[in-house]
Parts: sequence; structure tokens; C-alpha cells
Amino acid sequence: MTDNYKLSTINSQLSLAPWRSLLAGSLHRNRSLVYARYLQLATVRASGRPANRTVVFRGFVENTNQLKFITDLRSQKVQEIDLYPWGEICWYFPKTREQFRIAGRLNLVNAGDSDPALQQARQIAWQEISEAARSQFAWPQPGENKAAASVFQQPAPDSIAPLDNFCLLLLEPEQVDFLELRGQPQNRSLYLRDGQGNWSVRSVNP
Amino acid sequence: MTDNYKLSTINSQLSLAPWRSLLAGSLHRNRSLVYARYLQLATVRASGRPANRTVVFRGFVENTNQLKFITDLRSQKVQEIDLYPWGEICWYFPKTREQFRIAGRLNLVNAGDSDPALQQARQIAWQEISEAARSQFAWPQPGENKAAASVFQQPAPDSIAPLDNFCLLLLEPEQVDFLELRGQPQNRSLYLRDGQGNWSVRSVNP
Repeated sequence: MTDNYKLSTINSQLSLAPWRSLLAGSLHRNRSLVYARYLQLATVRASGRPANRTVVFRGFVENTNQLKFITDLRSQKVQEIDLYPWGEICWYFPKTREQFRIAGRLNLVNAGDSDPALQQARQIAWQEISEAARSQFAWPQPGENKAAASVFQQPAPDSIAPLDNFCLLLLEPEQVDFLELRGQPQNRSLYLRDGQGNWSVRSVNP
Repeated sequence: MTDNYKLSTINSQLSLAPWRSLLAGSLHRNRSLVYARYLQLATVRASGRPANRTVVFRGFVENTNQLKFITDLRSQKVQEIDLYPWGEICWYFPKTREQFRIAGRLNLVNAGDSDPALQQARQIAWQEISEAARSQFAWPQPGENKAAASVFQQPAPDSIAPLDNFCLLLLEPEQVDFLELRGQPQNRSLYLRDGQGNWSVRSVNP
């Protein structure tokens, strides 16, 4: 192991936001519940009204604090994010009774994205999902009148190269509101990122 | 029982939206999970960005399709709703793997609301929550720097008359997007309310 390697490891550890260890703990203590990786993503519609849906957490982009999700280019939320790339996730952990509200900028990584690291992350995300999940990207247009059952019976897509409408969706957190429902009063901490990317934290009233 | 009474009972049954029986079924089949009554409410902040937090379902206003929640007049969401009274809840039922996305207009019922029926609903909501829940409305301003522990040690508020900052929050649904994750392809139905209050439904691609 060279000194350079050690240094870069230390730097990447240092870059982890202070709320990351809390979230890792919550994920670990709720790991018996498959739906502890489900959370709700709020965006804003073209009409200005809010939208909200369940998405599945797919881990972090390596050496960053960006949360990964996947979505279909044809889904409503892609249009919303194109117009207004801000989101807030609400993530409730049933076993430990904790809530993370994470607000930040959303970034869609589609087939045309020119960043090689992001394009690779998109490909890995495709390879990591199940064949059943990959098949959904070959289904007819989401939200349109339901197609005949036969239209859903497609051969499974290639497991290596993502279909063009497969998108990686990244959330770059700017604010994290962490609430522990256990306890009276409950503990609540507010994490804020400044313009230089540094995080501060304060305890607030629940 | 007079004929009039029978008629009004029938009318109120007729006024229930077609998705109500689905939601009642989901609540029933998930009743062993206390957190099946928790859901996520998205609103829009003054900045235009979305907000999202967990709230607890408190039932429906009698003879209507309005969902009841409670909130503190001092909470951030009250300011958001005052500015822009639209919300979307995302309600995931873990046991049956169903999701309801319910969008509609939000209505805050505070101490000054002049509608006697709504004021009564607000009082009943106060009486139905636990003493611990009522105590939270006597706590210091939510979101401010955490007060000393002693400030949270207040005598329990009156159990009959709500504190002034106790609000009932109502959601009047306009659109319900119901998704059953079980099955391949999943079933998805879209319920829409027209200007006359009539609901239509269609099956759509998931």
C-alpha cells in the first residue's frame, strides 16, 4: 500500500457527511425489513403541485454523499426533475422509529450522459437489479391505458448493457433533518451543508 | 328509524369514493403493523422546493372522503400550506405491498375556524390522542435550537379543550394512484375526480 493510496482513502473517508454513520446504523438495525430500503421522494410537478412516490435506495455513489435510485426515462418524475431538479426524500425506519428527511438537488443520468464515471455507475446499477426489474424497462409506456397482457411478455433485456430508457437518479443532499421518535422529548438534529460543502449540525426542538 | 334517516345513510354511503373500499382493505390487512397508519405528506416550500415528512392517518371526516391528520400551528408545514394548499401523500402498505398516492387540496382547521362541524372534529381529534401526544403541543417552538430539558417538563394540557396551536389538517383527494406491487405486471389504477365530484377510474400501465 503506497502513501498515496492511504491518503486518498483518508480523504474519501473525511468527505463522508456526519449524518452518514447515523443512516448506516439505521439501515443496519432495520436490515431484517426489506422495505426499510424503501423511501418516499417528493418532487414538484409542472403545475407547481407536489408529487410523492416510493423509490428504492440503491446505495451511494462511491466516495460521495449522493444517494442512488433508478427510474424510467418515460416516468412522470423524469419530466418533473427536468423542469425542476429539487427533491426531498422522507425515509422512515419502522424498527428503530427514526426519520431522515433529506433535501437536495436531483441529477438524472441517462443513456446520453457524457460523464464516464456516472455512465459506469448507471451500467452497474442495471447489472445489479433483478431480471424481473430489468424487464419493466421493456414494458409499454407507464401511465397510459393498460396494454394487453401479451405486450408485457417480452424476452428479458440484455443483462449487461442498459436499455436506453434506464436512468440512474442521484440526490445530492443539502439538508438532513434527523428525528428519533423514541424518547420524550424526541431527539432531532438538523444538518446543513454550506457553499464549500462543509456540514454543520445543531440540535433542535422536535 | 325514519325514512329520512335511511335516505341520508344511503346517500352518505353513495358519496364514498370508489377507492375507499380498497384503502379500507389495505388498512385492515396491515392492521398488525402500527406504522401502516404512517404515511408521507409532500407539500411545497415558500422557496418552491418540495418538502416531505411522515404524518399519522387519523381517519376520515364523517360522511366525506377527507383524510384527517393533526399538526402544530407552529410547524413549518403550516406556513407551507398557508401559502400553497396542495399536497400529495404517499402511503405504502408493507404487508400487502400496495401504494396509494393521493393528491388533493389541504385545509387547516385551527382554533379560529368558524365552521362548527370542523371545530367539533378538531376537538374530537384532540380528545382522541394520548396525553403524551397532547403534551407536545405545549413544548417550545419546533425547529428552534433545543431548549433545556426542564422546558419540556410541562403539566399535561387539558384533555377536553385543545390548545390554540393544535390544528386539524384535512386532505380533500382529487386523484388517487393505486399500485399493487404483487404480480407481474403490477396492477395500477388511476382514480380522478371531476368538477362535479364524480370519480372515474382506469387501469394504466405500471
